[in-house]
Amino acid sequence: MISIDLNADLGESFGRYTLGMDEKIMEVISSANIACGFHAGDPMVMERTVRLAAEAGIAIGAHPGFPDLMGFGRRNMAVSPEEARAYILYQLGALDAFLRPMGIRMRHVKPHGALYNMAAADEQLARAICGAVKDFDPELRLVGLSGSLLIRAAEKTGLRAISEVFADRSYEADGSLVSRRKPGAIISDEREALRRVIRMVKEGKVKAINGEEIAIRAESVCVHGDGEKALLFAKSIREALTANDIQVSPA
Amino acid sequence: MISIDLNADLGESFGRYTLGMDEKIMEVISSANIACGFHAGDPMVMERTVRLAAEAGIAIGAHPGFPDLMGFGRRNMAVSPEEARAYILYQLGALDAFLRPMGIRMRHVKPHGALYNMAAADEQLARAICGAVKDFDPELRLVGLSGSLLIRAAEKTGLRAISEVFADRSYEADGSLVSRRKPGAIISDEREALRRVIRMVKEGKVKAINGEEIAIRAESVCVHGDGEKALLFAKSIREALTANDIQVSPA
Amino acid sequence: MISIDLNADLGESFGRYTLGMDEKIMEVISSANIACGFHAGDPMVMERTVRLAAEAGIAIGAHPGFPDLMGFGRRNMAVSPEEARAYILYQLGALDAFLRPMGIRMRHVKPHGALYNMAAADEQLARAICGAVKDFDPELRLVGLSGSLLIRAAEKTGLRAISEVFADRSYEADGSLVSRRKPGAIISDEREALRRVIRMVKEGKVKAINGEEIAIRAESVCVHGDGEKALLFAKSIREALTANDIQVSPA
Amino acid sequence: MISIDLNADLGESFGRYTLGMDEKIMEVISSANIACGFHAGDPMVMERTVRLAAEAGIAIGAHPGFPDLMGFGRRNMAVSPEEARAYILYQLGALDAFLRPMGIRMRHVKPHGALYNMAAADEQLARAICGAVKDFDPELRLVGLSGSLLIRAAEKTGLRAISEVFADRSYEADGSLVSRRKPGAIISDEREALRRVIRMVKEGKVKAINGEEIAIRAESVCVHGDGEKALLFAKSIREALTANDIQVSPA
Repeated sequence: MISIDLNADLGESFGRYTLGMDEKIMEVISSANIACGFHAGDPMVMERTVRLAAEAGIAIGAHPGFPDLMGFGRRNMAVSPEEARAYILYQLGALDAFLRPMGIRMRHVKPHGALYNMAAADEQLARAICGAVKDFDPELRLVGLSGSLLIRAAEKTGLRAISEVFADRSYEADGSLVSRRKPGAIISDEREALRRVIRMVKEGKVKAINGEEIAIRAESVCVHGDGEKALLFAKSIREALTANDIQVSPA
Repeated sequence: MISIDLNADLGESFGRYTLGMDEKIMEVISSANIACGFHAGDPMVMERTVRLAAEAGIAIGAHPGFPDLMGFGRRNMAVSPEEARAYILYQLGALDAFLRPMGIRMRHVKPHGALYNMAAADEQLARAICGAVKDFDPELRLVGLSGSLLIRAAEKTGLRAISEVFADRSYEADGSLVSRRKPGAIISDEREALRRVIRMVKEGKVKAINGEEIAIRAESVCVHGDGEKALLFAKSIREALTANDIQVSPA
Repeated sequence: MISIDLNADLGESFGRYTLGMDEKIMEVISSANIACGFHAGDPMVMERTVRLAAEAGIAIGAHPGFPDLMGFGRRNMAVSPEEARAYILYQLGALDAFLRPMGIRMRHVKPHGALYNMAAADEQLARAICGAVKDFDPELRLVGLSGSLLIRAAEKTGLRAISEVFADRSYEADGSLVSRRKPGAIISDEREALRRVIRMVKEGKVKAINGEEIAIRAESVCVHGDGEKALLFAKSIREALTANDIQVSPA
Repeated sequence: MISIDLNADLGESFGRYTLGMDEKIMEVISSANIACGFHAGDPMVMERTVRLAAEAGIAIGAHPGFPDLMGFGRRNMAVSPEEARAYILYQLGALDAFLRPMGIRMRHVKPHGALYNMAAADEQLARAICGAVKDFDPELRLVGLSGSLLIRAAEKTGLRAISEVFADRSYEADGSLVSRRKPGAIISDEREALRRVIRMVKEGKVKAINGEEIAIRAESVCVHGDGEKALLFAKSIREALTANDIQVSPA
């Protein structure tokens, strides 16, 4: 039986601010990427989110980002490879502190936002991230954009790489994501999006925005829990996968 | 042979800002308390400080503080026990991330500034801190003010407590520190300070500010490396200890 | 005709985080207290909130707080009077920068959360705040807890003080608020709360928690817009005031 | 008599961290650019620095930067023009709050670090900054890299632009600064540097790194006070200017 991972970014609340329907999306996904206090999350939120994820029985990973709470880690920042390495280590350790008392082992790492995007195309940055992850725990899986330099860097570093795909995003012929600023970047037809996910998982293929068929490796699908609509779409993806005899489990 | 620990707070630089003569004080002390990014320190500083301490062969501990960089963690903050717990865990984990790649184990934890002072007199806070430390690693030693509630809480929690004394501070008859706002709080005569240290270590006694002889447990002496004068005084303490056949080594 | 001010704390969103139904509560109130980036708010949020308040035609004031985003400014912090002064000036200036391009003048200042509560009972802090406000602009009104030291300090400083009352909170016989940790602190019966507001405004009296009738000065009533229920209650207060021939306008 | 402005970045200390010899460099310069709490500085530091600059009788300007204390505002950040505008306004207002009580008017604005460099080459960003400055106070001068897009944007916006030159940096033939990563970027021969400054000021010419003579507009020279050596060099520049009958005064 084929299987696929469903992952979501969680624990992105901060202090008085609540973001995301974490408990509800946890019923849908197999892997949680938990924010570590740089782009989102705080120690109280992290402890609570780890407990919830443990109770839900899903895999727990770190979701480290840039030190930019005001920009939610979504703005490119020109950090050096040394800075990226230190920021990753710091955040992995901080999250791990909430896993240890529960006897749980961190399973994966998925960089957040601008760090994820920059690392997909910047080899030096990608290698710095992978080196930090490996130094922290060589058993950790590294989740990155399918086909990106980050995936290649993880493999070269000797980490288990997990190729992530997006249900509602278009792909360029070279396998990169179509920029959100271009028309057609978002697949708004939900049934079309579901068909694409099934095909990426089952056949390893997707139709690029120029009409070309391209190969794509799909080991984890990113879903969102930051609104009713996103939550429903995530559930639809899970149902479509199940209906197609695809098992949902951590990669 | 009697032995005593000499500890100092290190890694308190931040970004472009340098604080302390870390490398020089490392030659004098046996234990380093490394800031964890809340009241001081940042990931780059932490990685560098851990490396230096490892090279110097001294014991490495965490120096967690309040999330108040602007106040350097020196201002009392009314955090809840749950917040204190989460803040301690977060900071211990963050520092540990820089020890793991070097195969070094964290040895102790010493709360910083206002957190240290509040925990000396607030049982709920003291227990929250000790609970977090134990949950992170039950082998960790907890450094606190000699005779304080924090030391008692550590013992009750089942942690190895390390009683800290100060060479240049006066004590009240109840064993607490004389407030810096009172006259006579600071022992400015260096030779008098050295005699007091030797006596605290050898006899477990000190003369309180009211003239009374009191018992005091001395397992670690706090020294400073934030200036030429402090550094020289730290060296004098070490020399005086050695001259009195007291060995300097981690508690 | 008697008149009363209705004020609410606004602009407390931050980056990706949204808090409060600012546009809706603006239809109900006469004065907006806008967060200034320390306990909540950021420059983008401030610019947007000022524009909305200007369009709504309500009075605009600053809502400065402690530099504690993680605790939303609700945790007591032991800042010095000099620090409080500098923090107030900084935040007033920052907010004013968004008023100047629109040709609007700031009308009032209401400290937030723990700063408000501490200043109600700490004369040194209260005077530091009032001094900063006066130095920034002596025409500014200072909103504080009715009967508190902050109101007295404002008057002594020569500022126009505005006495604030709460519809849903009980009062001690000395005019202070009943602590939220005590039973009966919150008036949960909405009709009772409305009757109390009308009586405070019209007669300057309220029944304290011990049953005693006490005098209370009511120049502004604090309402909230951080949820459907709070919004409805705010509307009910406004309707009750109007039904009792009390005009709602800035103090 | 020809005159030239000497400017330095000041008020870059933060909390417990001291940076720069502000009082000493103030004796040398005619204009102070004061950090506003984003990349450096805090409210206490700002109030103190404004007072010192006022006592020294030098022109006071704002030195706004990116919200990146950890990176000292030196790392490029992909902020939107709207964000840049709001960040500038916020910081100008914050600094102005410390000038108002002293009856002093802010004279100029010089963006800091990465913001300065990015604005020199990004028209959208440059226009956003200039728009914010003009909306805050149309009388403010805008200090930017001589020959850069920021200078052009200031002029188009209707602001008085001040062209800044550097004594110890090489120029490309197009008038831009030679990147610090290239050999020859820094003029290390002090006498050569002084000759270049005098020539830029007197003749409006400088020899580019490729040997070509280029025209350069010099209205303000940037000096530093973050070390003994920098301070001495700044004094040498002032002496060389005076010896060449060039008056030092705000532009």
